[in-house]
Amino acid sequence: MNKDNYCIIMAGGVGSRFWPMSRLKKPKQFLDVLGIGESLIQMTYRRIQKICPQENIYIVTSEIYKNLVKEQLQGINENNIVTEPARRNTAPCITYANFKIGAINENANIIVAASDHLILNEDEFVKTVNKALEVTKESDVLVTLGIKPSYPNTGYGYIQFDNNDFIPKDRDIKKVKIFTEKPDLEMAKKFIESGDFLWNSGIFVWSLKSINKALSQYLPEVYNIFLKGQDYYNTDKEDSFINEAYTSCPAISIDYGVMEKAGNVYVIPSDFGWSDVGTWKALYNVREKDENSNTIIGKNVMVYDTKNSIVNVPKDKLVVLQGLDGYIVVESEGVLMICKKEEEQRVKQFITDIEVQKGIEYL
Amino acid sequence: MNKDNYCIIMAGGVGSRFWPMSRLKKPKQFLDVLGIGESLIQMTYRRIQKICPQENIYIVTSEIYKNLVKEQLQGINENNIVTEPARRNTAPCITYANFKIGAINENANIIVAASDHLILNEDEFVKTVNKALEVTKESDVLVTLGIKPSYPNTGYGYIQFDNNDFIPKDRDIKKVKIFTEKPDLEMAKKFIESGDFLWNSGIFVWSLKSINKALSQYLPEVYNIFLKGQDYYNTDKEDSFINEAYTSCPAISIDYGVMEKAGNVYVIPSDFGWSDVGTWKALYNVREKDENSNTIIGKNVMVYDTKNSIVNVPKDKLVVLQGLDGYIVVESEGVLMICKKEEEQRVKQFITDIEVQKGIEYL
Repeated sequence: MNKDNYCIIMAGGVGSRFWPMSRLKKPKQFLDVLGIGESLIQMTYRRIQKICPQENIYIVTSEIYKNLVKEQLQGINENNIVTEPARRNTAPCITYANFKIGAINENANIIVAASDHLILNEDEFVKTVNKALEVTKESDVLVTLGIKPSYPNTGYGYIQFDNNDFIPKDRDIKKVKIFTEKPDLEMAKKFIESGDFLWNSGIFVWSLKSINKALSQYLPEVYNIFLKGQDYYNTDKEDSFINEAYTSCPAISIDYGVMEKAGNVYVIPSDFGWSDVGTWKALYNVREKDENSNTIIGKNVMVYDTKNSIVNVPKDKLVVLQGLDGYIVVESEGVLMICKKEEEQRVKQFITDIEVQKGIEYL
Repeated sequence: MNKDNYCIIMAGGVGSRFWPMSRLKKPKQFLDVLGIGESLIQMTYRRIQKICPQENIYIVTSEIYKNLVKEQLQGINENNIVTEPARRNTAPCITYANFKIGAINENANIIVAASDHLILNEDEFVKTVNKALEVTKESDVLVTLGIKPSYPNTGYGYIQFDNNDFIPKDRDIKKVKIFTEKPDLEMAKKFIESGDFLWNSGIFVWSLKSINKALSQYLPEVYNIFLKGQDYYNTDKEDSFINEAYTSCPAISIDYGVMEKAGNVYVIPSDFGWSDVGTWKALYNVREKDENSNTIIGKNVMVYDTKNSIVNVPKDKLVVLQGLDGYIVVESEGVLMICKKEEEQRVKQFITDIEVQKGIEYL
């Protein structure tokens, strides 16, 4: 394993679309959403250790999740848990971690990944990332992994690539033409038909030098803030510097701030069973189902005339369900939600309504 | 108030059709099923006190509910709580109470009523019962209250009366032609059309002398058992006598054992907003509903696109329901049930399945 391989795992999200299972105090990445005894961040951490030495893996998260990270990721070094004093989207988070890594190894070759995505084919994932690392360690390119789409999903951003423009030494790594926002269904269908659109997975591979160069060029308002602290990273002055730096830093995504602007962005069309598990329906799609197409977590759930439903209840709770077709039934931390699968996007409205109508921050 | 007026309130049922709200440890009669701060037995006890002196009201129940009765019925005398050592249906229960009452007042004029029925128009109820008491104190007749049916209910037994045969001094009290079992829907519709069928409410009025005469004639195998103990009632020998008597007593209903056989049975066609609240649907029918025809107990229940449903959840539990039409949603004592209203008769199956499949007596 190459000692220059590093990874930044982003774990600061609150996963509100997964309410009431995902809660502010314990969001999605820390949950065993598949009911297999391992949380999403645990799976991610284990997977990345096939590519990076453990000491080179950094978790960027919020201060309030530091203890959860320590609990769930056995053997992690305290200095590898990078806490953000405020939520500022992905660009500041990546820039901060870059400087911490740069203070240790300026030849770092970095993978950036989310903590709460699911990857079913780990071998293929490792192969794809290693292919990217081979290129980025020698070339000044920014590589993103684009997922070969299996259906016209309207919840993902898409990446269009140029089939005739690729890295000479690896024809599988294509030049990116354009990043697109989430399309409507009609547009998504066209994307799929065209054959040159991929799902934007948010997994990036680049050398420290290349990403810093791009940040200084396209996002100097972020880069320069963190540059000022270069003597403080990994010292006892880091925290107070970062507290101030974050306050003054704008919130901006790496996609918008760098990837959509840079001219050296490449994509690897990939196929490793990826899902962002971003919604109940997405979770339904990746979980094992019984003969009635139900997926049930809970030992004492009895179902009658029930199909196409996803059920997530406390392990020992006795639950009897009759006559449900296509529903989400979730009970978590004393909150019960029953909602049609097709209406799952309303979960955010539910949370807002609860806050407004009940005057309680229930997230 | 006539000091010869007595009442036997039967409170030994387990109310399994109301699972999971009604549970073995606290069945339906002890629950505030309307969410108004009063249980069904409390309402019944209060209502009967408009007719009988409190000390003349007897509650017949199982030993395990004795404390619940004491808790819920303030001021009740211990001797007025009659406990059955075994479940033997209504005839033994009534015979036992008869002898206890007879040992105190042989001129008793008795009302027999269930503890778990609902009566919306109490004034009309009191009027009707008093009318019956007027007759039974002087005549050797067994009177039952028959409810004027409002729709072809297939869950009740029916009573057919003879419009031309009545008690001379009160033309409203009709001779009973026949008691029928629960009909199918077609038959129930015919009953309603005919105009001479009433719902069997299970509320009876008779003098102690008349019911004892009928019991000795039609149910000597029950009557004679309790007759043997006539020196023991209301003494410290009662308990051990009753323990033995009940063991040897057959289980039989007063309807089958006496009412269907006796020739002096009369019925008062009544209309006082009665329901046996025997099922979730029956409860749905009598509870107040919102503009979407939902009836909800629970302070923190948020509903979206939900109608025709009955919801019963713990007071402070946060529950979000979306997209349900015609469902029962109940959570009680840690058990959750979601079931279509029209499938409510399957509750008994659920309980059996839980016992068989989970090996746990969940009732």
